[in-house]
Amino acid sequence: MRIISKVVHSLRKFKSMRSNPFACRGAQTQLHGVLTGAGIGIFISVTLAQMSAKDKRRKLNTSLYMAPPITDADHLLTAENDMKTKMELLIMKIQADFCHALEAEEYGGQKFKVDRWLRTEGGGGITCVLQDGEVFEKAGVNISVVTGHLPPSAVQQMRTRGKKLSEGERPFFAAGVSAVIHPRNPMVPTIHFNYRYFEVTNNDGSKQWWFGGGTDLTPYYLNEEDAIHFHKTLKNACDEYDILYYPKFKKWCDDYFRIEHRNECRGLGGIFFDDLDSPSQENAYKFVSACACAVIPSYLPLVRRHKNDEYGDRERQWQLLRRGRYVEFNLIYDRGTKFGLYTPGARYESILMSLPLTARWEYMHTPPENSKENKLIEVLQNPKDWVPFDPVRVS
Amino acid sequence: MRIISKVVHSLRKFKSMRSNPFACRGAQTQLHGVLTGAGIGIFISVTLAQMSAKDKRRKLNTSLYMAPPITDADHLLTAENDMKTKMELLIMKIQADFCHALEAEEYGGQKFKVDRWLRTEGGGGITCVLQDGEVFEKAGVNISVVTGHLPPSAVQQMRTRGKKLSEGERPFFAAGVSAVIHPRNPMVPTIHFNYRYFEVTNNDGSKQWWFGGGTDLTPYYLNEEDAIHFHKTLKNACDEYDILYYPKFKKWCDDYFRIEHRNECRGLGGIFFDDLDSPSQENAYKFVSACACAVIPSYLPLVRRHKNDEYGDRERQWQLLRRGRYVEFNLIYDRGTKFGLYTPGARYESILMSLPLTARWEYMHTPPENSKENKLIEVLQNPKDWVPFDPVRVS
Repeated sequence: MRIISKVVHSLRKFKSMRSNPFACRGAQTQLHGVLTGAGIGIFISVTLAQMSAKDKRRKLNTSLYMAPPITDADHLLTAENDMKTKMELLIMKIQADFCHALEAEEYGGQKFKVDRWLRTEGGGGITCVLQDGEVFEKAGVNISVVTGHLPPSAVQQMRTRGKKLSEGERPFFAAGVSAVIHPRNPMVPTIHFNYRYFEVTNNDGSKQWWFGGGTDLTPYYLNEEDAIHFHKTLKNACDEYDILYYPKFKKWCDDYFRIEHRNECRGLGGIFFDDLDSPSQENAYKFVSACACAVIPSYLPLVRRHKNDEYGDRERQWQLLRRGRYVEFNLIYDRGTKFGLYTPGARYESILMSLPLTARWEYMHTPPENSKENKLIEVLQNPKDWVPFDPVRVS
Repeated sequence: MRIISKVVHSLRKFKSMRSNPFACRGAQTQLHGVLTGAGIGIFISVTLAQMSAKDKRRKLNTSLYMAPPITDADHLLTAENDMKTKMELLIMKIQADFCHALEAEEYGGQKFKVDRWLRTEGGGGITCVLQDGEVFEKAGVNISVVTGHLPPSAVQQMRTRGKKLSEGERPFFAAGVSAVIHPRNPMVPTIHFNYRYFEVTNNDGSKQWWFGGGTDLTPYYLNEEDAIHFHKTLKNACDEYDILYYPKFKKWCDDYFRIEHRNECRGLGGIFFDDLDSPSQENAYKFVSACACAVIPSYLPLVRRHKNDEYGDRERQWQLLRRGRYVEFNLIYDRGTKFGLYTPGARYESILMSLPLTARWEYMHTPPENSKENKLIEVLQNPKDWVPFDPVRVS
């Protein structure tokens, strides 16, 4: 019996990999030893799906995640082809992989504190925070899976954005992962990413759905090699879906993460997109999965490269000033933060985990010309193209 | 000739005191040795006004202020009865008195850095910042005197607030003083105040004007004696104009300075009001002057009482966390900050001088029950009446 359940579990894992060939590398490597051959995989997965419906002998392997899922695990298994399920499992996996990757960089065994929370209005989330680590001063990785009713005003706002929704209050589902990592060493950049899925149900039962998200980098000192590596990793992930995605979403990112009153970008950008509902739900999901899976390879090499770099008080003070700018963007401009905080009953601790442990504001601080601090300001004021765009192939 | 000009200068000073009997104590004391007797004062002031129009032998004593006024000094003298002039001179005086009072508390002779700036759109300001002092970690005192044209959308917004304005773009004048003081010692509270005058001109030349402002206190530890002294000083200033003002404006302050998502007030409140256009322009101006003049006596005694109090790392860390909350309020909720930053060409350094030198955010920080930190939280969640309201006298 034990052997059977082990095989069933492995098969299930394999199946989930097959239905999402864009799952991250870690999981793929794990599976290589289990089964190979696409034909066998597809055959077995069909059998498994029939079994699960019939005799409920399957159990979701929640040990893969930071905490049990928000949605009932049995429901996730039975509704495994629903995009809501696929997205919840994806963000749980992304969260766990990223948290474990960061924990592995710490020297003193620092671990994420895990808070699973529920909303009275429906759904909840898992907030993971590692604070005061040796490598990470504050790292927050959050998922939320939220259901409820959009008030008529929010529905109206979505209609003006082009969503085909009937007027009035509408049931919605939203699932997303978001993270902000503030490392201690000023030579290691801050990273932020967020990937989300939104679904609203109409009176006639039809659904409007869309994906959004992005990944962006905020260094304290400019290192061109890092910038190129980061952007190249994101571009590679995008290009597999549409070579027009990266240039479009790179510009969107530069335009969105702007500290308008200072006339500078928050960081070196990355990719950012919203309202993605093409070419198909499955394809958009795969694209979002690929972007989310690109986070670790885009960022961890930079952490490893710089976490032991030497620095002094000058670099630390500059880092704290730049973190002040980060706070300015998040609290003044970021739509997600504002939308979250204005929502009655919002879990503000999960929203504000994005803020650094310490930030500083000095009146009229301007780095000297030709200083390494000013080199950063120059690219923040004039966003660069870090990797060349591909010309569109004419067939 | 030298003696004459000295006398003229003294007379002018005296005259300005007579026309504003609510000018602050410091100036009043200075004058006591010069002239006494209301009859003489009024007689001489009339003579002076006639002289000034005739032979322009007067010169504004700009040494009273932190920098030359924004409006041309000669214009201020010739238009001395215009409320725009009176307000500009008031805020300049309030700024200088407050800056000098704070400088006097420093041990190492730290002084305010003074930046006089002009806007291409019209007007400008004087920003005074004392940073990294021994007593004041960051103290910002700003005045601005701004002219320009309100866009139709802003005019429309004011119409919905009840202002009698004709539609379309309208010329406006705004003058105000605002200050935020973040002391180093966590036993000394932070203070904020802001007093302002707004004037919009209609098509037919008629004007809509109103005053706004307030003073509020944000301690890091609750000291009831301080809270009572602070509120009592403000109440005394209010009661001379209307005993209904203090209870009304105290509640307005508690309601306005709320960190909504945390369900707590920013501090212990004080007074706050807007759209004040009664009982007369002169009376409203005198009330605003009285409030502005109450700032020093409400706050400086607390600075003197606590600036040498002992404290350790626990108190410092708590102060930094509370400063994080201060940043949250200012960047998320404060209408003045948002309005300022969203204005194209705004001098953001003057707006953001309100932010502390250093702030901190810890995930899920909750002070232990019965701790002195929690005593503060309790009153922030449940604002108290620090001084009893007077019953309305029935005549």
